[in-house]
Amino acid sequence: MGPPPKNSVRMEVRIELKPGVVDAEAMSVEKSLALLGLAAVPRVSTARVYDLVFDDVSAVEAQRLSEEAVDRLLANPVIHRVSVRPVPA
Amino acid sequence: MGPPPKNSVRMEVRIELKPGVVDAEAMSVEKSLALLGLAAVPRVSTARVYDLVFDDVSAVEAQRLSEEAVDRLLANPVIHRVSVRPVPA
Repeated sequence: MGPPPKNSVRMEVRIELKPGVVDAEAMSVEKSLALLGLAAVPRVSTARVYDLVFDDVSAVEAQRLSEEAVDRLLANPVIHRVSVRPVPA
Repeated sequence: MGPPPKNSVRMEVRIELKPGVVDAEAMSVEKSLALLGLAAVPRVSTARVYDLVFDDVSAVEAQRLSEEAVDRLLANPVIHRVSVRPVPA
């Protein structure tokens, strides 16, 4: 067996609120944009993104480790909807 | 002149910290993942994403309004790096 691959693998973890969970920051942004007089006020939603860069692991392992990080630390399954995807490093 | 286009235009505003600005949440996540015993601890960076959905405006106008929202409300040019791009609605 050779050494593990030396490349970096970059994963993007995107955490949003589930439909029905109040997005207070988004509501505040909508209100503020209206108060500022923006010519057209958009509907707003927010997301938190974590970029995870792994060294010396395979793409499959990076996906698995990212999902473990989500499950054990980053997201709350009661209120959060999560996507995990590889992005160019 | 006809009516303005009726389609929704969805813009993604992604706000990151500039290089050199301490990303305290990212540091905390790295430390926590190490303490949890994750098999490989990634380098972490964070970003805030605002999804803005405009009705009845052109793609060009949605881009302009999003940049106005960034400049007047969402980002601090001293510490933030911002990208604004259209995404499928």
